[in-house]
Amino acid sequence: MIESLQQVSTIAIDFGGTRIKIGVVQRGRVAALHVLDAESRGGLTARLPVIVDAVRAACAEAGTTTEGCAGIGMALPCIVKAGRILSAIDKYPDATAMDLPAWARQTLGLPLALENDANAALAGEWQYGAGRGSQSVVLMTLGTGVGTSAVIDGLPLRGQHGQAGCLGGHVTVNIDGARCVCGNIGCVESEASTWALAKLARASAGFAASALAREEVLDYRAVFSHAAAGDALATKLRDRAIRVWSAAAVTLVHAYDPELIILGGGIMKSPGPIVARMQQYVNEHAWVGWGKVKVAPGELDDSAALLGLEYLVERGVERAGAGA
Amino acid sequence: MIESLQQVSTIAIDFGGTRIKIGVVQRGRVAALHVLDAESRGGLTARLPVIVDAVRAACAEAGTTTEGCAGIGMALPCIVKAGRILSAIDKYPDATAMDLPAWARQTLGLPLALENDANAALAGEWQYGAGRGSQSVVLMTLGTGVGTSAVIDGLPLRGQHGQAGCLGGHVTVNIDGARCVCGNIGCVESEASTWALAKLARASAGFAASALAREEVLDYRAVFSHAAAGDALATKLRDRAIRVWSAAAVTLVHAYDPELIILGGGIMKSPGPIVARMQQYVNEHAWVGWGKVKVAPGELDDSAALLGLEYLVERGVERAGAGA
Repeated sequence: MIESLQQVSTIAIDFGGTRIKIGVVQRGRVAALHVLDAESRGGLTARLPVIVDAVRAACAEAGTTTEGCAGIGMALPCIVKAGRILSAIDKYPDATAMDLPAWARQTLGLPLALENDANAALAGEWQYGAGRGSQSVVLMTLGTGVGTSAVIDGLPLRGQHGQAGCLGGHVTVNIDGARCVCGNIGCVESEASTWALAKLARASAGFAASALAREEVLDYRAVFSHAAAGDALATKLRDRAIRVWSAAAVTLVHAYDPELIILGGGIMKSPGPIVARMQQYVNEHAWVGWGKVKVAPGELDDSAALLGLEYLVERGVERAGAGA
Repeated sequence: MIESLQQVSTIAIDFGGTRIKIGVVQRGRVAALHVLDAESRGGLTARLPVIVDAVRAACAEAGTTTEGCAGIGMALPCIVKAGRILSAIDKYPDATAMDLPAWARQTLGLPLALENDANAALAGEWQYGAGRGSQSVVLMTLGTGVGTSAVIDGLPLRGQHGQAGCLGGHVTVNIDGARCVCGNIGCVESEASTWALAKLARASAGFAASALAREEVLDYRAVFSHAAAGDALATKLRDRAIRVWSAAAVTLVHAYDPELIILGGGIMKSPGPIVARMQQYVNEHAWVGWGKVKVAPGELDDSAALLGLEYLVERGVERAGAGA
């Protein structure tokens, strides 16, 4: 009997702040993809029946059925451990009370691997993208928030309670800074991320005179574009943000000892001098006795987490307790 | 034949900035101890013959011989990997060129485990001191510099190039701060450590009027003592330093997901409100979904690294490549 596609299919679901991506992944390739609105503040429970319909449709498109898949992987913007969501802030407020592995077993008859979204994205980039062949890699996703993940000496880092590696957006870079949504002071996220930007910009001297004041959506796309055109405040905000992300990168180099830092997330889609400047800062300021840490953009774009979920479901990384 | 003490003896050498401690350790107990001046700027090569004499004397005192020991462990204030010293800043300038495992084999006929000093101290506290029974522990040593080390889910963290875990004194807490000796900006060490203190104090408003200006040795013992007596600048420097160490503790919690932070180092020998205040800061600002991270002083004082070296020599942690 020859191996059927069913035996190598994995259902991968990536819950973002605005969209839910539902894919069927076959050996490092997204064979079918459905995208739903997240409606995340309405809770996860309300979205599950719609998700199941999309899963079945995606399986049919990929030439398989749910029953034939190896398992299901879910990536969420939360801290997860042993199949439970431990910390969600304001995204999917009902999720922490749910037993998602039981839901997957009962509804789809499949084992579930639950993962933090940055951990899933790094697994994808490490196996199929910019991190191929690297032993130790750190991912930073720059977007609405700042997510991170680490692979150390060939092992995905998770930690005793599932929160090692994924909280690099919440290390203090400005001890005299403002309180972050997470409760810490002067975090990377509260100093430079899309959710923090509008407040930072409006509190800056010269905001009224800046082209940014006339933007409907105040995001880093606008900041980079007006900075390139010479706007003084946009230039200041751009340079500060890159310095914040760079300082975080050095902290992650000092914490995890990687050979490579991969940059992903929505902000990386806007043309800007992020990679070159962060590489320069890391070269100048990281304490690296052995050589040079490379800074590189991710290669898989929106499919990194989906492909990573396939790897993590197959390897059962969470179940294997790859704690360190 | 009954087991002799020889078979359970390990030679442990702890190279500090000012002293070299040479111990013979037998099952978690320092059976004999010799202490030499470090004379570290004169180089390591010049100290080795004197060290060998002290090793032989300590062995005799402990009722054993060098030939009968299981191995030799060395802890140094440097980044080490696979028996080589990779980064030494200005301590023991000749050490990076040396093949110490070859020296140990040729001179004493013993295998050598080379370790970063904070990694050795944490191994000691984890096995025999404040960290007994913990799965995930971080050590911060507050002294001339700030050293750190991490055990994650029962595995000592080392990283691909030997520098994961031990560089927590060089994460940026003040992005607008001064350049540290390591090359990074606003490090924990350059914001609050004994080497940085005198400069920080003298650059502060009110220094001339402070009791600190009349101290011959400007260290945190003086700062804590004058702060307790109401001196304004000493109070400001004390509070700032504890805030810096606390922010670093939160960064380490977010990076490594420990259940316990152990505080050691020379500064911990001065009476001061460090533990209580750091515990409060961590409670308020660390993002911990699962419970509470405890902050506790080390229990082994000066013998932590010696006892840790016994554990690391026995377990061959470096050789086993416990990279993550």
